[in-house]
Amino acid sequence: MLEVVDINCDLGESFGRWRIGDTDDAALMGLISSANVAAGFHAGDPNLMDQTVRLAAEHGVEVGAHPGYNDLQGFGRRKISGTSKELINDVIYQVGALREFARRHGVRLQHVKPHGALYMEMAVNPELSQIFVQYMRTAAPDSFVFCMGGSATHRAALEAGQPVIREFYADRDYGDNGSIVFTRDAGRPDPAVIARKVVRACKEGKVRTVSGNDIAIEFESICFHSDTLGAFEIVRQMRDALIAEGIRIAPVSELANQKNTRGEQQ
Amino acid sequence: MLEVVDINCDLGESFGRWRIGDTDDAALMGLISSANVAAGFHAGDPNLMDQTVRLAAEHGVEVGAHPGYNDLQGFGRRKISGTSKELINDVIYQVGALREFARRHGVRLQHVKPHGALYMEMAVNPELSQIFVQYMRTAAPDSFVFCMGGSATHRAALEAGQPVIREFYADRDYGDNGSIVFTRDAGRPDPAVIARKVVRACKEGKVRTVSGNDIAIEFESICFHSDTLGAFEIVRQMRDALIAEGIRIAPVSELANQKNTRGEQQ
Amino acid sequence: MLEVVDINCDLGESFGRWRIGDTDDAALMGLISSANVAAGFHAGDPNLMDQTVRLAAEHGVEVGAHPGYNDLQGFGRRKISGTSKELINDVIYQVGALREFARRHGVRLQHVKPHGALYMEMAVNPELSQIFVQYMRTAAPDSFVFCMGGSATHRAALEAGQPVIREFYADRDYGDNGSIVFTRDAGRPDPAVIARKVVRACKEGKVRTVSGNDIAIEFESICFHSDTLGAFEIVRQMRDALIAEGIRIAPVSELANQKNTRGEQQ
Amino acid sequence: MLEVVDINCDLGESFGRWRIGDTDDAALMGLISSANVAAGFHAGDPNLMDQTVRLAAEHGVEVGAHPGYNDLQGFGRRKISGTSKELINDVIYQVGALREFARRHGVRLQHVKPHGALYMEMAVNPELSQIFVQYMRTAAPDSFVFCMGGSATHRAALEAGQPVIREFYADRDYGDNGSIVFTRDAGRPDPAVIARKVVRACKEGKVRTVSGNDIAIEFESICFHSDTLGAFEIVRQMRDALIAEGIRIAPVSELANQKNTRGEQQ
Repeated sequence: MLEVVDINCDLGESFGRWRIGDTDDAALMGLISSANVAAGFHAGDPNLMDQTVRLAAEHGVEVGAHPGYNDLQGFGRRKISGTSKELINDVIYQVGALREFARRHGVRLQHVKPHGALYMEMAVNPELSQIFVQYMRTAAPDSFVFCMGGSATHRAALEAGQPVIREFYADRDYGDNGSIVFTRDAGRPDPAVIARKVVRACKEGKVRTVSGNDIAIEFESICFHSDTLGAFEIVRQMRDALIAEGIRIAPVSELANQKNTRGEQQ
Repeated sequence: MLEVVDINCDLGESFGRWRIGDTDDAALMGLISSANVAAGFHAGDPNLMDQTVRLAAEHGVEVGAHPGYNDLQGFGRRKISGTSKELINDVIYQVGALREFARRHGVRLQHVKPHGALYMEMAVNPELSQIFVQYMRTAAPDSFVFCMGGSATHRAALEAGQPVIREFYADRDYGDNGSIVFTRDAGRPDPAVIARKVVRACKEGKVRTVSGNDIAIEFESICFHSDTLGAFEIVRQMRDALIAEGIRIAPVSELANQKNTRGEQQ
Repeated sequence: MLEVVDINCDLGESFGRWRIGDTDDAALMGLISSANVAAGFHAGDPNLMDQTVRLAAEHGVEVGAHPGYNDLQGFGRRKISGTSKELINDVIYQVGALREFARRHGVRLQHVKPHGALYMEMAVNPELSQIFVQYMRTAAPDSFVFCMGGSATHRAALEAGQPVIREFYADRDYGDNGSIVFTRDAGRPDPAVIARKVVRACKEGKVRTVSGNDIAIEFESICFHSDTLGAFEIVRQMRDALIAEGIRIAPVSELANQKNTRGEQQ
Repeated sequence: MLEVVDINCDLGESFGRWRIGDTDDAALMGLISSANVAAGFHAGDPNLMDQTVRLAAEHGVEVGAHPGYNDLQGFGRRKISGTSKELINDVIYQVGALREFARRHGVRLQHVKPHGALYMEMAVNPELSQIFVQYMRTAAPDSFVFCMGGSATHRAALEAGQPVIREFYADRDYGDNGSIVFTRDAGRPDPAVIARKVVRACKEGKVRTVSGNDIAIEFESICFHSDTLGAFEIVRQMRDALIAEGIRIAPVSELANQKNTRGEQQ
């Protein structure tokens, strides 16, 4: 049973004059502990990055970079068959851009969480994960990698000793292999159903899969998406349900002493 | 008379599979002391940025960010009428991206030099210069601003106490007001003519303008462009001529104790 | 007094997963006679262009291309200082792209209307207008140019004999010189106020300026913007008010026999 | 034995201020019969498209559109996992843009040839090929599809009755299955070796594969790439060798009466 958990959310995923989702980023900031800030390749632009990091700083929400494939039109949810070196250079570029806004607003880079199809690709691609983690060891040794438990990214971080956090996906469905079922459109899920699913995962360490089986799940952070329809209500009910169960919400930087967040071999 | 001078050059200005100019960046690295590395908006891509910063690190050349207008097709030589805040957010994004590659390769961000039309706009736009310098004071207080002597950028840096370097433009023509004559195509200048112009500027502090007058000029760094045709021969002859006159070439970070490089009121 | 008038509107101005304004394009299609379809440089993407042209074809709404500056982030509302030749090549590219979707859906290219800052720049730039009209004479001789009455674009079309339409701007303010006051944010105007303004312009040929004066105004089409907040209500009330006054709504291609729509010298 | 053959080449594949390959497009125009003009997504920009189409028109070279994946940095040689509908909308956009420049310069759209990774994907993806060919049937029924003999694209064109041309790849290697071995870097091949390979393919209908076997090959057009190093010498020697063997060079629009170029079931 988890006594404390992080809630992370992708924010700043609009672009230019356009908006995404039906939820205001400022409203979400009051309910989460870690923000994954889009860094311009799949969403976000320099003005929005500046504004989102400032907002996070004002709310005491920890900031992470959320790099994606270089594909604005596809919102980073289409795979691009670049080499691992190319893709990690794209990641480095975006992490640096986001970190500069963090520096401007006096906050640290708590974590890096790849976005969408890049997150999924990294999860199954050991070479890509290793080059990513090597870069993190060199240039961001104290920042956490956010990933799926048991993924290639998770293993690469553990092996290299990079701080790492496993996520539970509140608004995505699970397959029997413990991986999430990737979708380009998540619809409008029921907040109450999500809240129950999250509480159960925290208390029992279990989640029901799309085929109706229960599987064991371990994580330190709960993820939901700000562009999921009804995102505000989702996180509000989820957060209330967690607190009602006596589970504390805190950013992963406060969890650093707990097991599994440091990438030591276990 | 200058006893020591920096030579800076824009590098990494190709993109993807395309190349620019007739000169190899690696060849130029052996002849300069400071590299302005394109950061992706007007030229450069993450792979090239990684490669260029690594090359600079290997040659002991100091690294600066070279942010431009967000206009690949126009190579940053067309003005975009964004607000000052928007434009500086674009600058911050690019500086951060470049700085992350510097961090990866274990080198510092020596300086920031805006590119092309953005450099020219900043030179005459006090608001834009001030927002830029405010950002530098906050997030890069030890990095130098490269600019035109007497420009709005120069004044803003001096007023704010930001380290600042004035440039002499080896391969551009001067107007009577001490400003360079902006061009989208510099042609193929004569290296010997440039070498004489540069030596005279260092020794006498004078340059001849397009209308044939001599004007006084002060600077700490000599700039030339890697996409000027014959760039390698230009810098080779210029460098040889300077050394023959007893003038030492060194990066601006070594000149920091000299007058005018710290932005104190004078 | 106008007996028949066109209503045109910018549509398809979302991008990728992002949306703009608070109004559904499909709802607007039932109320307008001509659609200006964004063509990918300031807004719109190939999927949305396909969908918007199909929607127009289904509603019997005439299709025009709506090319803008190459600036997604700035939504085409920032000027880029390209040469006239460059900018018209950008226009040609976008018009062709849009026209191919029109061909796919079996509809013609009724008109071309530049977007935002490009529209404004063309209005005051005779060279840009002339190169634009020369292209239209060659490649789209039967398509209308939409422009501001008395602008450089209007004069260039009249001189070259290109079909041309003058617009009345329902949701923008006028200056005393008959030009609209350019804005990057139009706020949420009152639909009833707009309806009265439009009816008066059609019946009396007059509009009140921002300084409170009445000026004479001539036009064949009424323009409003789908990203103006409350766009649906604006066009609904405007349309009802026009019909109540006995003014018929029809696309400009049906007005072609009326005076001023052919670009003959008068 | 072929008595007449088309030579096609990708042209206009620079971008903005950058250049590609070591060969001048104008020089190649004198030696080919069909030009595949890059359309802005993987290479090419509106200015270059205008210039390349004008050049083709002046040389009497037939013009085709050369649409690619939306990936300037990767030069269209990386796959993007878009849906078939999305990808064909990207193709339509680019074909239209190119066709508008053709219209401006008074020439027709002879053909469409997808570029790089999109060409390879279409070759093995029946759904993508069918949606592409459906679009061609509707909007460009007289323009040829260029493709690999036996590919899904070839079959889709034959089934739909769309004019179609099979290519022989002069500067690429063949596998035993008759498909070319895709590469991101073709090196600098020997022009004499290529000339012999092409003449043999035309006279004997055979090509040697990378594993040393001979396979039968049918085609109506010979393709080479302008960014292959030494492209000018490659096409010059190939063309001379063909003419020396009595084989005439002509655009595919002149071959339309020959067998296999019309997409009738055979």
